[in-house]
Parts: sequence; C-alpha cells; structure tokens
Amino acid sequence: MKKISEFSRDELLSLKSELESQYNEFKAKGLKLDMSRGKPSKDQLDMSDGLLDTLSSEEYEKLSLPSDYRNYGILLGIPECRKLFADILGVDAENVIIGGTASLTLMFDFITQCMVSGIGGCEPWLKQGGVKFLCPVPGYDRHFGICEYYGIEMINIPMNENGPDMDIIEELIRDEKIKGMFCVPKYSNPTGITYSDETVRRIAAMKPAAKDFRIIWDNAYCIHDLTDTPDKLLNIFDELKKYGNEDMVVEFCSTSKITFPGSGVSALAASDSNIKEIENRMKYQTISQDKLNQLRHVKYFDGKAENVIAYMEKHKEHLAPKFDAVCEMFEKELGPFGVASWHKPNGGYFISLDVMKGTAKRVGELCRQAGVVLTTVGATYPYGEDPEDKNIRIAPSLPPVSELMTATQLLCICVKLAACEALLK
Amino acid sequence: MKKISEFSRDELLSLKSELESQYNEFKAKGLKLDMSRGKPSKDQLDMSDGLLDTLSSEEYEKLSLPSDYRNYGILLGIPECRKLFADILGVDAENVIIGGTASLTLMFDFITQCMVSGIGGCEPWLKQGGVKFLCPVPGYDRHFGICEYYGIEMINIPMNENGPDMDIIEELIRDEKIKGMFCVPKYSNPTGITYSDETVRRIAAMKPAAKDFRIIWDNAYCIHDLTDTPDKLLNIFDELKKYGNEDMVVEFCSTSKITFPGSGVSALAASDSNIKEIENRMKYQTISQDKLNQLRHVKYFDGKAENVIAYMEKHKEHLAPKFDAVCEMFEKELGPFGVASWHKPNGGYFISLDVMKGTAKRVGELCRQAGVVLTTVGATYPYGEDPEDKNIRIAPSLPPVSELMTATQLLCICVKLAACEALLK
Repeated sequence: MKKISEFSRDELLSLKSELESQYNEFKAKGLKLDMSRGKPSKDQLDMSDGLLDTLSSEEYEKLSLPSDYRNYGILLGIPECRKLFADILGVDAENVIIGGTASLTLMFDFITQCMVSGIGGCEPWLKQGGVKFLCPVPGYDRHFGICEYYGIEMINIPMNENGPDMDIIEELIRDEKIKGMFCVPKYSNPTGITYSDETVRRIAAMKPAAKDFRIIWDNAYCIHDLTDTPDKLLNIFDELKKYGNEDMVVEFCSTSKITFPGSGVSALAASDSNIKEIENRMKYQTISQDKLNQLRHVKYFDGKAENVIAYMEKHKEHLAPKFDAVCEMFEKELGPFGVASWHKPNGGYFISLDVMKGTAKRVGELCRQAGVVLTTVGATYPYGEDPEDKNIRIAPSLPPVSELMTATQLLCICVKLAACEALLK
Repeated sequence: MKKISEFSRDELLSLKSELESQYNEFKAKGLKLDMSRGKPSKDQLDMSDGLLDTLSSEEYEKLSLPSDYRNYGILLGIPECRKLFADILGVDAENVIIGGTASLTLMFDFITQCMVSGIGGCEPWLKQGGVKFLCPVPGYDRHFGICEYYGIEMINIPMNENGPDMDIIEELIRDEKIKGMFCVPKYSNPTGITYSDETVRRIAAMKPAAKDFRIIWDNAYCIHDLTDTPDKLLNIFDELKKYGNEDMVVEFCSTSKITFPGSGVSALAASDSNIKEIENRMKYQTISQDKLNQLRHVKYFDGKAENVIAYMEKHKEHLAPKFDAVCEMFEKELGPFGVASWHKPNGGYFISLDVMKGTAKRVGELCRQAGVVLTTVGATYPYGEDPEDKNIRIAPSLPPVSELMTATQLLCICVKLAACEALLK
C-alpha cells in the first residue's frame, strides 16, 4: 500500500473525507475514555485487596518484632522492608531508605535538599545558581515538573534505541553547571526503551565536571515486565563501583504499580555517603514513615523479593493483552500509511507514539473533542514543548480492553486525519 | 520547711551527702528508663488496634465511594477525611489538606516552599536573605530544627502564663525580616500553657511589616485534654477573619497521638489563598497521599469529630495518672525545697520543669549516668542553648506508672543534688 506521503492531493482529499465521517461517527457516540495516566486498572487493584487483610490486629499481636512498629521511630524504615527492597534492587539493605507512599516525593525532596543544602559537601545549587539538568526526551512529565518548580534549566537529550544519546551527554557534562539527569532506565517513560549495557556502563563511567552531579535513576518499572522476553537492565551500583562513582546515582522505586498506587511504599537506594546526607535531611522532616504499611507489604510478600517478582506475572496477565491490542491496531491502522512510528515495549506502562511532525497537538485536540483524553500532548518534553510536535504518550493500563480498542481506533483515525490536514495545507 | 537557698553551708553539705547516697542506690539498680520523647504508651497503642481491622477487603468492597481510593489521585485528601479534620479544627473542609503520616513533614515542606518559591506573591525567603523567626521559649525542638536546617535566625520570645510575650512580638514584627513564628497554642510543648483569649486575639490582629509573615499554628494537642477542666483555645481562623488576616496563619495537626504515631494522618488548615499555593507545590511533589489510610481513619471514627473527641477520654485515662504521679512527686520532693517550678498542664504530652538556674545540664547528666534518659537538656531552646540552663522537658507518657515513679524519684534527687553542688561552689 502507498504511504500517505505519496498520496496525491485527490487521494488525500478522499481519505480525509472518509476519515472525517468515521470521526464524526465516533464523536456521536459521546465517548468518555481516559488514556492519559499510567493508572493500574480495577482488576489490577483487586489483585492486591488481600493487602488490606494482611495486618489485622490479631496478626500484629502474633508477631515478634524488635520494637513496637505502631510507635514513633525507625526513620529509615523497618529492617524487613529495607531488606525486601534491597533484594529487589540488588543492593545492601543499609543502602536503602524507605519513604512514604510516593517515590516522586523522595525525588522531589532529594532535589530540594540539593537546592537548599547542597550535596557531596558542595554549595547548595540555589547558591551556585544557573543549575542545569539533562533530560532524555521524550520523558516523564513529573520529572520535568520538579526541575521547573526549582527553576532548573532542562536540556533535551534525544533517546535512541539504547537509551539517551551518550555522546551528547559526555560532551555536556564538561560544564560544571550541569548538575544531574533524570532517567527511567528500564522501560523508559514513555518510550519503553531499556538502557543497553553499554549505555549503563558509559553512564557509570562518567566523570562530570560538577562534583555534585547526581543522576535520578528512577527505576519505576524495575520488575514490571509485559512479555516473556523481558529486557535486562544492568545493576547500576555494580557498574558504578568499578569507577568509584557510587555517589553519582540515587535510585528510586515503589510499589505504586505493584500493590496500590498512593497507598504503597516507596524506596531509594544510594551510596553510604548519600544515604547519610539524605538521612540528615529526613530527620528534620519527619520522625518516621508509615511502618505499619511497610510491615503490611513485607507480610503480604512474606518478605521475599521472589514473591514480588512472581506477583508481577499476574499484573502482566492484565496488562499484556492491552499493550498487544493497542500495538496490533497501530500495526493495522497506521502501519500501512507510514504515518506514525512506535516501539512495542517489553514492560512498563506506556507506548510512545510518534505521529507526523507538527500534528501531535492536533491529534490530541481531535481526540479530546471526541471524548478521549490522552496525556497532554507536549508533556513528554521539558516545558511541555515538543520541538517537533510529534510525540504522544499512550497509557493503555486503565481502561478495559473493549474501551481501549474504541479509544485506540479513534486515535488512529485522528492520527491519519491530522496528517491529511497537514499535507493538504 | 526552709528553702534550699536559705540552707547554711553545713546544712547543704549534709543534704548533699544524703542525696549522694540516695543517688548511688538508684545508680546501683542499673535502671534503663526513657522520659525523653512524647511517645504514647503500649496501652494507648493497644487502644487503636481496631484501626488495623477497620478496612478489610470485605469492608472496602461494601463501600460505595465516589472513586476508587486504591488508585492514584485526589491530591488534597478524600472528602470524608478533610471533613473530619475540618470539624475537629472548626474550619471548612475546602480549607483543609490531608498530608502523609506526619504534620512535621507538612510544616517542613511549607517552610521549604516559603524558602524556595516564596509565599503570598513575595520573593522566596532564600532570595530575600536574612530571614528571622520568632520562637516562643521553651518550645519544641523539632520546630527549631526546621529553622536551623534552613538557616532561619531564631529569636527567643519568653512564654508567660498566657502564651508568648505579645508586647515583645508586636515590637519585633515591625522588622520586615521577621517572617514568622512557630507556635503550639494549646498545651504548648513543653510548658503545657494554652494561649489566652487575649493572646490569640492580639496574634490575630497583628500587622507585621512582612507581607509574607506566616505563623505555624501547630495545634498538635487540640483535643488532647488530661483533666476535667480542660483549657479552651479560641478558633484562630474566626479571629483572623475579623482583621482580614486569614493568610497569616497555617494550622497543623495529626492523629499521631490519637491513633498510631507514624501511621496516622496529618492535616493542615489554611486560607483559600494559602491552600492554593500549598496545592501548587504539592502537585509537583506527589500524586496523592495514602487515601486508604485516610479512609481507615474515617471509618474507624465513623467520620465524626465527636467520636474522635470521645476517644480522647480513653487516652486521658491512661495519661492522667502519669501526669498526676509526676506532679505529686514534684510537689512532695521538690516543693518544700523551693528548688524548682513547674506547671501542671490540663492537656498535652509534657511537663516543663524549671530547676535552679545553671543546673539543668548537670541534672540531665546525673540522670543519664543513673540510667534515666531525659529530653536533651537545652533542646527546648533554639540552637539547643537554654540561656539560663534551667529548663527540663519531662515526657511522662511512655513508661508504665511504676517505672515513671522510679524515674521521677531519681530526677528529684538529681535536681536537689545539682542545686546543692551549685550552691556549694
């Protein structure tokens, strides 16, 4: 079949008219569908209902605990929970701190700390002024939000199939004002790309000019596989050790997409020195996190990382058909027209769809008008500005498959329609 | 009986020798008692064990909720929980934000926001530079800690029986660099004093030079009465309204000393404008707090403030005998010697003991050597410096009454012994 770019004007006009009538049919349905955020579905949430029963008062009384977890204290998290996350991340328990419900808060607070108190014995970033961050794009809007909140200048780093472009990064970090980088190294949000071994090694070996350069290694999807051929990410701390670079990275994760989003447990892993500095801030901020929720999670998984990993198989059963359905429809509806490109990920929560340059915003608008909400177009780039106006993040997890199919069908119509409009201009 | 200050040298020597032998007897017991922090006792924690059972999966399924609280979202807290805290604090639900487990974090984060983004449309405090806070003394060490973390200069404001000295405050706030004040207006930590109506009114009517002056109204003990003649605190927001001053105060509280410390729910109350600014920071920091824990608390108290207040009666039953015991022993062992003063509070978690000037540190050290840990002496003052070295914070809540009696007996011996030593110098 001919690609849309090879269509004649008449062919375009005819396709456009056909698409418009399809679009209007959808619009008439009065849809109200949401593919905007990476929220687990009701079925996935139901999976974890047992978590609510796991720490009854009867159960609590039976436990023989080193201290009373109902009371104040144990700032860095209960040992059992630190151990559980340590095993998941492949680090030592003393290099893990358990946070509240959201890893985003742990990241925000860490950046706060760098801004106002400094890190690694250096001046606070706010005092240094003109601080910049590297942002692989497309990326996660909430990472960019933190930078924006603090006025940290963001520099786009293009992502390729191996992760961020390391040649550019290695060049840029010679600037002392470049203080860090936000990363989702596995099943990157939104591209679904996992950083290759070479990329991880090159990151670990970096020698940035700034002594207080810090990488936010947001390993949000560390065990969130979707296929039987999952990606493998090198253990960043194993690599960092080889270069004496352990202080350069702080790793984050949570159970938000394992148990309940917003009622889970977050964690960070870091070098001895970073742990010490983070603890020194935390002790001003709180007396303890929610140890009972930590205990609830530990008990629910019997304290074993292997049980958490096995649990992810059940999430996969819910999620994989949705990712399959979206990608199959893209293949069928968009593929022949050469009007968009995407990567079918082996895990994570998103599909990144690149439509024809200059049409992404229009696609978002068309979808919205027909009752389908996508992630705000542009949000996958710093300052909400996609320089090529082509990237759309698809979050297939929340809607049931039937709704998802409807929404994706509409999306495909909009992608083609916006392309026709653009080519006819 | 003669006051110790009227003792002759010989009388002092004889008393000292007697006290030393009593002290050594205690020391020989190898005590290990802790009166350092305001932790609820095991009996109090047991009271709330039902909270663990209140949100079983079966219960959750039965509920008809406006949305799925197991998922992301509802940043400011579930409506039922905002309503519950609104009723406790006497404000509107839309003026309440629910936080994580610790009100301390809400306060820390609010100060962070003022420091780095500014409040009320003013320049960030960090940018303004030289920011100062008023600190009623003795006060809460963790409040001072936040100031210290941010390099906010603290100015001691003496507390009297009506609250902080308002004459001094009204004078100082003419300085634009004075940006706020930390308060525990009811059952103040550690004095147990509740601000008089006149004090609250004078606070509400203040016209500080700084437009971004903010009072941290830490109402930690808002319903934490200990006697049948509880103190009454005026509703600060009712008073502020009279002067169009609602933006000047942000109020904080939590269930830490109602249900489980560290696994409770915190809240803040603020003006529309402050709520908006706080929300604008929070949305960068997290997607939602723990809505299931919020729901657990709402269900446990059937959503009714009156039930929470009735619940506090049970805490009183555990706590009142301990406060009685300590104060009775002070009366008996210290009273006749005129060697210390204290206020028996109608609520809260502390008794503030003023010993002979210049001897508090020595008392703390003597206690420590005999196995009784007190709150670090000096901690009730900014920078840990009690200018008169006389204040000791007693936290009677944690130990069982028998242990508490032993510890208090030892404390009384140490207070008198240190006084003898000082007078004999």
